Amino acid sequence: MPDTSVPLESLREFSERALRSTGVPPTPAALAADTLVTTDSWGVFTHGTKNLRGYVRRLRAGGLRPAAEARVIQQGPAWSLVDGGSGLAMPTSVFAMDQAIAKARASGIGFAGVVNSCHFGAAGYYAKRAADQGLIGIAMANDIPSVTAPGARGAVLGSNPLAYAVPHEPDRPILLDMATSTVAGGKVFAAATLGQPIPDGWLTDEQGLPTRDPSKIVHGGALTPMAGHKGYGIALLIEMLSGVLTGAATAWQVVSWSLHDPTLPTGHGAAFIAIDIGAIAGRTAFAERLARLVAEIRATPAAAGSNGVLLPGDLEWQRRARAIEHGIEFPPDVIASLRALADDCGITAPI
Amino acid sequence: MPDTSVPLESLREFSERALRSTGVPPTPAALAADTLVTTDSWGVFTHGTKNLRGYVRRLRAGGLRPAAEARVIQQGPAWSLVDGGSGLAMPTSVFAMDQAIAKARASGIGFAGVVNSCHFGAAGYYAKRAADQGLIGIAMANDIPSVTAPGARGAVLGSNPLAYAVPHEPDRPILLDMATSTVAGGKVFAAATLGQPIPDGWLTDEQGLPTRDPSKIVHGGALTPMAGHKGYGIALLIEMLSGVLTGAATAWQVVSWSLHDPTLPTGHGAAFIAIDIGAIAGRTAFAERLARLVAEIRATPAAAGSNGVLLPGDLEWQRRARAIEHGIEFPPDVIASLRALADDCGITAPI
Repeated sequence: MPDTSVPLESLREFSERALRSTGVPPTPAALAADTLVTTDSWGVFTHGTKNLRGYVRRLRAGGLRPAAEARVIQQGPAWSLVDGGSGLAMPTSVFAMDQAIAKARASGIGFAGVVNSCHFGAAGYYAKRAADQGLIGIAMANDIPSVTAPGARGAVLGSNPLAYAVPHEPDRPILLDMATSTVAGGKVFAAATLGQPIPDGWLTDEQGLPTRDPSKIVHGGALTPMAGHKGYGIALLIEMLSGVLTGAATAWQVVSWSLHDPTLPTGHGAAFIAIDIGAIAGRTAFAERLARLVAEIRATPAAAGSNGVLLPGDLEWQRRARAIEHGIEFPPDVIASLRALADDCGITAPI
Repeated sequence: MPDTSVPLESLREFSERALRSTGVPPTPAALAADTLVTTDSWGVFTHGTKNLRGYVRRLRAGGLRPAAEARVIQQGPAWSLVDGGSGLAMPTSVFAMDQAIAKARASGIGFAGVVNSCHFGAAGYYAKRAADQGLIGIAMANDIPSVTAPGARGAVLGSNPLAYAVPHEPDRPILLDMATSTVAGGKVFAAATLGQPIPDGWLTDEQGLPTRDPSKIVHGGALTPMAGHKGYGIALLIEMLSGVLTGAATAWQVVSWSLHDPTLPTGHGAAFIAIDIGAIAGRTAFAERLARLVAEIRATPAAAGSNGVLLPGDLEWQRRARAIEHGIEFPPDVIASLRALADDCGITAPI
């Protein structure tokens, strides 16, 4: 193992300690740490422990309440509305997905909406939680606008993520976790730091016109929605399910978890759906039919120069297996953030 | 009104007559006609009455059963499985969306899966049916593969459509109806007919590599998924909900409604979800919050040279208002198909 890799267990302990130093109780601290470390193990470093420093700053400043407990404020046979109490979004989101799962077990499908949440990290973590229990899981959330729409100048909606997980191989569901922007803002910021042009189609400028200049992202520009009006339309559905239906903040009323005054609650909304495969299809019949479809997809000939088609999640499970065995090799920005967080908290960094 | 426009009422009567000539009873014939005429009124000519001739051929040949009646074969508190009996997909889909609506009214959210369906036309029609009753509607279906995936050579999944409708202005829900391919195959066929190159990113060739030659669509090529792996991932979710969960045909087991032996049932699957706004949010609170979000979106400055941002469905409702007043101006391929159908059935064409 190279010196620069971080074992998952060290990262988990460090994350829990950092969160507990702000007054977060053991159970939510452990849940949030597992969310972030799992995300890092998938290689999704933009949504893992790199962000812990920002969450901790908000927990100390009061915009995130360390001792908040998510609770059901309204419910019906197949749905719940959950108030996150402006606590950490990870335990809140787990609580809400567990609500959706319980409702689905009772009724076949379950919906849980969330108010008073915050940035929940990787949507796929919560979707996987349903798949681990034999259900199809879908997770989504809104965010402060950073993505434009066809015809608009500047941002209209957040990069509103959507994830799903479908039980397949043990502990390896089919897993898609995507932003509804063409690319993540992090890629544009990275190019701006390096002074390199970005590909066509990622960004618009202060006139709402296409640009290859990544610096426009902080000068009136905005990310493009994936697939134009289609990505915008899906982001709007996510905004309506996560924000309008639930009563959470929407669009520009959402406070940035990373950039805005850390004493303010961010007001994010989220939505979770679970579907009980056992009730609707029977688990065995579903597994057999899915295996047949997967075999057919995997048998598709590879494009010239390619290794062939993957299932959503294949890369994440490969990376996770490597991370469990060898630890995680982090890029410099994550290492810098973890070390700065260690200084903030007076604890030892895991690297 | 120009001589070449077709009044909606004439188109509806013609469509019903054509369907009834095959033995389809009055109620399903009227429902199917309304689906196709409404779709034409939105300007979505690829999924309207142009396809009626193909459906009628299948009804006569037996692959579609004229007298089939959709029925619930299994159900729970918030879900139903519907068997379409290899009848016309439009009345089957309306029946299934009504199941999802009824389940949502009882439980807050409802799911209806469908087996033994066929090509259902425009998914948005069924989504709108839920919105007309105050619910959020989501509709999707699978189809025979025509779209590739990153790394693959040739088609992997269908252009699996996804639509949603959210109640907004009276009879004008926010409405998105999209294929999960970058563009519809019809656009590629049209370019091939004209011998014109297509833009980058629409099509792959027989090696799985990008091509601008539209003729490749019939020589081993395939449409690209919208937004690469994201569109492929969403199409796969639709395949799993419409096909794997329900037990319908999936991927290459689906029979083409237009190209394959018309004596065979096509086996398409579909899935419908309804969410009861009244139960979860209260209709008034939801309408107020949505109005605020919509006002904010509409107030976004326009990009240079643009008329500004639209809501999904804005164009369709503008076109429909024009169609109701002036009739529909069809392109030549639709007119030719309607006239050929009139000949097939021994009835008078509406144009």
